[in-house]
Amino acid sequence: MRWYVVASLLTVLTSSQGILTTLSQSNGGYKYDYATVPFLAEVFKLLVSSVFLWREMQNSPPPKMTMDWKSVRLYPIPSIIYLIHNNVQFATLTYVDTSTYQIMGNLKIVTTGILFRLFLKRKLTNLQWMAIILLAVGTTTSQVKGCGEASCDSFFSSPIQGYLFGALSACLSALAGVYTEFLMKKNNDSLYWQNVQLYTFGSIFNMGRLLMDDFRSGFEEGPWWQRIFNGYNMTTWLVVLNLGTTGLLVSWLMKYADNIVKVYATSMAMLLTMVLSVILFNFKPTVQLFLGIIICMMSLHMYFAPPSTLVDLPLTVKPVSESVSEVPTERKTNS
Amino acid sequence: MRWYVVASLLTVLTSSQGILTTLSQSNGGYKYDYATVPFLAEVFKLLVSSVFLWREMQNSPPPKMTMDWKSVRLYPIPSIIYLIHNNVQFATLTYVDTSTYQIMGNLKIVTTGILFRLFLKRKLTNLQWMAIILLAVGTTTSQVKGCGEASCDSFFSSPIQGYLFGALSACLSALAGVYTEFLMKKNNDSLYWQNVQLYTFGSIFNMGRLLMDDFRSGFEEGPWWQRIFNGYNMTTWLVVLNLGTTGLLVSWLMKYADNIVKVYATSMAMLLTMVLSVILFNFKPTVQLFLGIIICMMSLHMYFAPPSTLVDLPLTVKPVSESVSEVPTERKTNS
Repeated sequence: MRWYVVASLLTVLTSSQGILTTLSQSNGGYKYDYATVPFLAEVFKLLVSSVFLWREMQNSPPPKMTMDWKSVRLYPIPSIIYLIHNNVQFATLTYVDTSTYQIMGNLKIVTTGILFRLFLKRKLTNLQWMAIILLAVGTTTSQVKGCGEASCDSFFSSPIQGYLFGALSACLSALAGVYTEFLMKKNNDSLYWQNVQLYTFGSIFNMGRLLMDDFRSGFEEGPWWQRIFNGYNMTTWLVVLNLGTTGLLVSWLMKYADNIVKVYATSMAMLLTMVLSVILFNFKPTVQLFLGIIICMMSLHMYFAPPSTLVDLPLTVKPVSESVSEVPTERKTNS
Repeated sequence: MRWYVVASLLTVLTSSQGILTTLSQSNGGYKYDYATVPFLAEVFKLLVSSVFLWREMQNSPPPKMTMDWKSVRLYPIPSIIYLIHNNVQFATLTYVDTSTYQIMGNLKIVTTGILFRLFLKRKLTNLQWMAIILLAVGTTTSQVKGCGEASCDSFFSSPIQGYLFGALSACLSALAGVYTEFLMKKNNDSLYWQNVQLYTFGSIFNMGRLLMDDFRSGFEEGPWWQRIFNGYNMTTWLVVLNLGTTGLLVSWLMKYADNIVKVYATSMAMLLTMVLSVILFNFKPTVQLFLGIIICMMSLHMYFAPPSTLVDLPLTVKPVSESVSEVPTERKTNS
């Protein structure tokens, strides 16, 4: 499968996730415990990956599987980073309001670019750096609500801790993505074997979170396993299936494409959700959304279009033929 | 003089124009007749250009001056276009509110690019086209006030005539600029001789406008020449001098650079005015202004930076040495 097909699918499904989550609410709230959704999604991903791995094991040659503890022990690290990230997220929200938080979330696009460069040693052209900054600016533009709703008063007036925690949150989120890419690419183990390790730890950590919630509430509502499907309906199951499927697609992209592709897919999904909200929920279309879409489309084109279609290369010179690589950043020469 | 020095000067002076005009008001209104300002600026430009032309005529060889009626008769055309433009502007404002009008004004950036291509047959790379669209998006972003102030309700809800007149206004404004560039570059006449012709007609048309205003008001306040300096103070004279000087700089850019350089200079000036307003008049800085500045800076870099600094050119290939041309669009090869 080509990376852009997977990325497009990720865009559509991530966008549906927002719509489905809204549809799964009744009277503006959840009838079910939302914390059960990521846990069940992890279990779903684990089951799907296990089935695929089992099928792969029937074939010959058998899939490459590194069972070494030195390798396996690296797989809980993304879960640990997400755990820390969740707590930093929580700390950030005690200092800033939700719209400032949402706007700062776009910083993740830039931090992903930076860690991608530093940690994975992947070179980007200046134009690609500019495209990444524009993507962050474009998504932010679409979210800005304007001064009338008091969000711009508060944007520059949160305590400094709020911005520091927001920046830390963006770094941790980027780190989790970049670390996962490193894990998936560090050897040519079977994708499904890597997934099984990743999602086993993911399920354990999510289970731990449900148990923590139970302890915090003093088991008032009973242990999580007794009430896990409480309030679930068809839409809730679709939310779980959708979240699981997007997770599997991200995992594929981390191995065969990269973090930047994922960042573009999820940013485009955010814009698509806003457009769908205008159509489905009669949200008012804003000029900002329109401008944000143009900026992000320009950014997409700047990042992925072959340079020869963007600038005039000197005529005396014949561009070297470009190999159609799966990963766009590898398409360019490293100078 | 290098074009970027002139363009930077134009940015600073255009930006001061906004600040000076605000300072020249008392109690939120003008004590003087604002229509006298462009007239006096035309006269100022005519005087300055005449002096420079006279000095040039003392030199040998004398400046090149085409006196042919076939050439001279082209010089009132920019004034005529501006006259039509003013009336279309007036018609637009009967259909749309001022903030929608201001936002549509940014369309001028794109129409200038299009007429520049069609009328002057100047080729731009895809990246330069994207830069022009981003410049328009960036200036618009900085101006959007958000839904809270009702401007976004009205943006998509004006009558269709409003948008059509707005688009026509953007085309006429671009046409005036592109036509002036055509005039200034069509032969290598002395810049000052071209200016003298341009500003003689400019003065006449502005005088006509003052006279029209007098007729409309039934000469209630007497003819314009009797009350021309009424309410003038030091700041008003600075506004006149500043407007005249920016006009002379634009004229220079039209001959030795191009319309796109002018569009960048005036767009950057708009942003600079907003930043200065935050500092001088305690305006609230908005997230939109911050985002708009980033977008416009990216656009500037995309348009003017040598392509080789933006993308990695294949290593096997040596870029042909770029001639340092005065006009950036001529720097690239026409493919």
